[in-house]
Amino acid sequence: MAVPWERYRRYRCDATEAGLSLDVSRVRFNDDDLYRLTPALSSALLAMDRLEAGAIANPDERRMVGHYWLRAPELAPTLEIGHDIADAVASIQAFARAVHDGTVAGAEGSFEHMVHVGIGGSALGPQLVCDALGGAGDRLTVHVLDNADPDGVDRLLARLAGSLGRTLVSVVSKTGWTPTTRGLLAEMQSAYEREGLPFARHAVATTMPGSSLDEVALERGWLARFPIWEWVGGRTSVTSAVGLLPAAVQGASIATFLEGAAAMDRLTRQASDPHANPALMLAAAWHWLGSGRGDRHMVVLPYKDRLQLLPRYLQQLVMESVGKRLDRSGAPVHQGLTVYGNKGSTDQHAYLQQLRDGRSDFFVVFVRVHAERAGQLLELEPGVTLGDHLFGSLEGTRDALFARGRDSITIAIPAVDERSLGALLALHERAVGLYAELIDVNAYHQPGVDKEAAMGTLALQQAILRHLASADEPLTASEVASAIRQPEQASSVFELLDHLAMDARRRVCRVAGETPLDARFHVRAAGHVRGKGPST
Amino acid sequence: MAVPWERYRRYRCDATEAGLSLDVSRVRFNDDDLYRLTPALSSALLAMDRLEAGAIANPDERRMVGHYWLRAPELAPTLEIGHDIADAVASIQAFARAVHDGTVAGAEGSFEHMVHVGIGGSALGPQLVCDALGGAGDRLTVHVLDNADPDGVDRLLARLAGSLGRTLVSVVSKTGWTPTTRGLLAEMQSAYEREGLPFARHAVATTMPGSSLDEVALERGWLARFPIWEWVGGRTSVTSAVGLLPAAVQGASIATFLEGAAAMDRLTRQASDPHANPALMLAAAWHWLGSGRGDRHMVVLPYKDRLQLLPRYLQQLVMESVGKRLDRSGAPVHQGLTVYGNKGSTDQHAYLQQLRDGRSDFFVVFVRVHAERAGQLLELEPGVTLGDHLFGSLEGTRDALFARGRDSITIAIPAVDERSLGALLALHERAVGLYAELIDVNAYHQPGVDKEAAMGTLALQQAILRHLASADEPLTASEVASAIRQPEQASSVFELLDHLAMDARRRVCRVAGETPLDARFHVRAAGHVRGKGPST
Repeated sequence: MAVPWERYRRYRCDATEAGLSLDVSRVRFNDDDLYRLTPALSSALLAMDRLEAGAIANPDERRMVGHYWLRAPELAPTLEIGHDIADAVASIQAFARAVHDGTVAGAEGSFEHMVHVGIGGSALGPQLVCDALGGAGDRLTVHVLDNADPDGVDRLLARLAGSLGRTLVSVVSKTGWTPTTRGLLAEMQSAYEREGLPFARHAVATTMPGSSLDEVALERGWLARFPIWEWVGGRTSVTSAVGLLPAAVQGASIATFLEGAAAMDRLTRQASDPHANPALMLAAAWHWLGSGRGDRHMVVLPYKDRLQLLPRYLQQLVMESVGKRLDRSGAPVHQGLTVYGNKGSTDQHAYLQQLRDGRSDFFVVFVRVHAERAGQLLELEPGVTLGDHLFGSLEGTRDALFARGRDSITIAIPAVDERSLGALLALHERAVGLYAELIDVNAYHQPGVDKEAAMGTLALQQAILRHLASADEPLTASEVASAIRQPEQASSVFELLDHLAMDARRRVCRVAGETPLDARFHVRAAGHVRGKGPST
Repeated sequence: MAVPWERYRRYRCDATEAGLSLDVSRVRFNDDDLYRLTPALSSALLAMDRLEAGAIANPDERRMVGHYWLRAPELAPTLEIGHDIADAVASIQAFARAVHDGTVAGAEGSFEHMVHVGIGGSALGPQLVCDALGGAGDRLTVHVLDNADPDGVDRLLARLAGSLGRTLVSVVSKTGWTPTTRGLLAEMQSAYEREGLPFARHAVATTMPGSSLDEVALERGWLARFPIWEWVGGRTSVTSAVGLLPAAVQGASIATFLEGAAAMDRLTRQASDPHANPALMLAAAWHWLGSGRGDRHMVVLPYKDRLQLLPRYLQQLVMESVGKRLDRSGAPVHQGLTVYGNKGSTDQHAYLQQLRDGRSDFFVVFVRVHAERAGQLLELEPGVTLGDHLFGSLEGTRDALFARGRDSITIAIPAVDERSLGALLALHERAVGLYAELIDVNAYHQPGVDKEAAMGTLALQQAILRHLASADEPLTASEVASAIRQPEQASSVFELLDHLAMDARRRVCRVAGETPLDARFHVRAAGHVRGKGPST
């Protein structure tokens, strides 16, 4: 089911300067709907103006929100901030050149790999950018450690066996001491020490100047330190050193990436007509589709393997920004906009069945890439290439959904290159900011995220271990819970004991009971955990 | 917020024989709720019995549903089917041995890589199994082509540059001629021809005996052919040759994988008490949580890097099975159960903000893995390892969600190994089957999926090209649409012309107009597409 030509013309927005087009003709709103949103959209644009001028846009954390300055330092509220931004970009470019030409090298030769250590906002942007722009010709191969999974560390170290002396480790933590990042740093440091390699000669830090990580990197003489600032949030840090360093080291042009973002910023900063401002149109479409409450979730389907991580990136950008309990006046609103997806056409074969036939509680964002391939064009039959199949799948799927009353948005970019990627991400950053204004939530804090989620459990673990070390005989979980005066925590105590007794190298041992839950636990006298703790 | 000990004992199901436990104590239902579901659960078990005995469980396609026989050939409804299953497993094991010992080798030596070509159900299971069980010690490195993206093909070929003569290509298509799979096969074949390598010496097929792919493989003398059968659906094919071949070639024990699945099948086949049958309990929990309509979506968070693809696998298994327009009596129900997620703790930093504070329209399935790591245990501080951080994150997050009224399920397995993975997947296969019985939909067809989604667009493309070839002057999209008597398709015609004119190597050229939509298009006389078409 095709869209009528006049509607298509009216609801397609060609952002030629930024090389991107946005087609919302398959969203069943009309000019009246948009007109009703006009006052709110105008206010949202004004609020974004104030934000870009340096207002305290995140009042809860009393900070400015400055990710737009990262690609337009001349707009920063002070000359000093502008200079800091420009200096950081220049230092990243210089460092990448030195890595590429071997001026900066590891203990065993020029760097061939980089391990990016970071979590959440410090990982998703870099992963997306490196996967989207990377390939067999990368200057360095970038790997990411983004989880407290020790087996994940083992798996990466096995892949890098024999190469650590030619591997750069980039540690990213805005505040400097996120527990998971700290643990991963200790793991990497230990791996270098086991190989007799000087870790400092392979390490760089990206963090706020003066943070504890910054101090460690300075004291130990790490290769380099790159700044981020309190006015850059993790989920909008991709155009800061967080995203730029891995991209530059891998071999991408970060100047072009920043230019793409800046072009989109210019285009979406002013125009108050949604038909001429794709960020405004996108925010308006999200609002209309979900009735301003996120009543439909957003399925993101980029039809290009290189963009497979885009949905995960947007999942964080959107959900962490708008998934809020309170609006800015403090009223409970329980807002949100759920995002998921992988890639087209692959996902068609995974869950299009439900999208077409099942619950009608979503809309789709199709991302189309014009460039087919750099390699040889092959005709599968006369006049038809594999890329025609990919494009045909997108068209056919979109039309089939439209015919069933399922709305969709299509964003098209010329290619997956630095410029288009910069524009695409900047478009979404601004759309999220505008949408948050429409629904009146603070898009820039995360009051519900406890980065120290593990800390309560770790404290309980230590209390259990202390008690068991002094106990005369094996105890059940509920006995331990009572003994440490936390009887209501018996189930958590059991799960912890069960966890600690799983690895025969650890001190906690299990004596089987009638059921798994009746098992008794005790500790061996001598510690059996091997390895050196972190000296940081 | 911990669960009371008695409730924890009651709602934790230890499937000891299959090495798995299921904890639904954080789902706020009670024994009365389960009791009300008892008649429906009993009927569901009986229906599964009939299915396993060979009933036509998928009436729309008039076929049996036999994936449970794949790990218990003795239960197959005929001796012949049982023999076919056992023979297939033996032939896969023999082939993998021959590949590993070099008896079967490529034109340039022993196989080091395998490219698995398949889409949807022919890709997600293999991807999950190979990623979960793989690592630096793999016998062969398995790559997957699962999309009609020509750039994706280029990127993989660049990684394999110089290695094609030591690369095995495994083509998987149940019916034998899925268009995307056919296109990818042509691409791979062309790559071998460009290198002067005999493709047949590097190719194997997995398909229904007698299919067109089977015939091609036979005629051309491919290395081997492995069967799948009409009674195996794509999304439940992981214990058929579809999943077993890549796992075996990579170096996994497929016998142990099948044993794990068989053990879970034995455990979940009979017991009518949900407290003793984790598949029944899981189906009941899904039903209660979503009010039998999928009103809450399922966020799957495996706390282990190796299981990162599990949510995508379950997304397909669940959504394609239960996302149906009609129930089995033909009444419109628009069912579904939306699944998404990546991995914990990573996802905590991406969207836990919304899960804790925002819309309460989901539940979480935590997957916990007991084994911490094979590598050296490192103490980050006395008595505390990185794995303790991972476990603490799971516990802390689960409790924080519970305190906010967000329910969750926890599945724990001893390790990510063949046995546990087999059990985990078999658990979900049966839970899906049981849940579909509870909501009375056919779990085994996919009437809304058009595998030929691209075909309408490709036909329109050919009509446009024919008309342009005979046109005297450049035409606009709407002129072309009128000329081919499809004026209502003008927007689709424009998008197609826009697509075809993007690559300068193709015949369609653009003359810019006042706006992008006013561009005119014409074709060059001589075809400029290079490369040989597929000879298959």
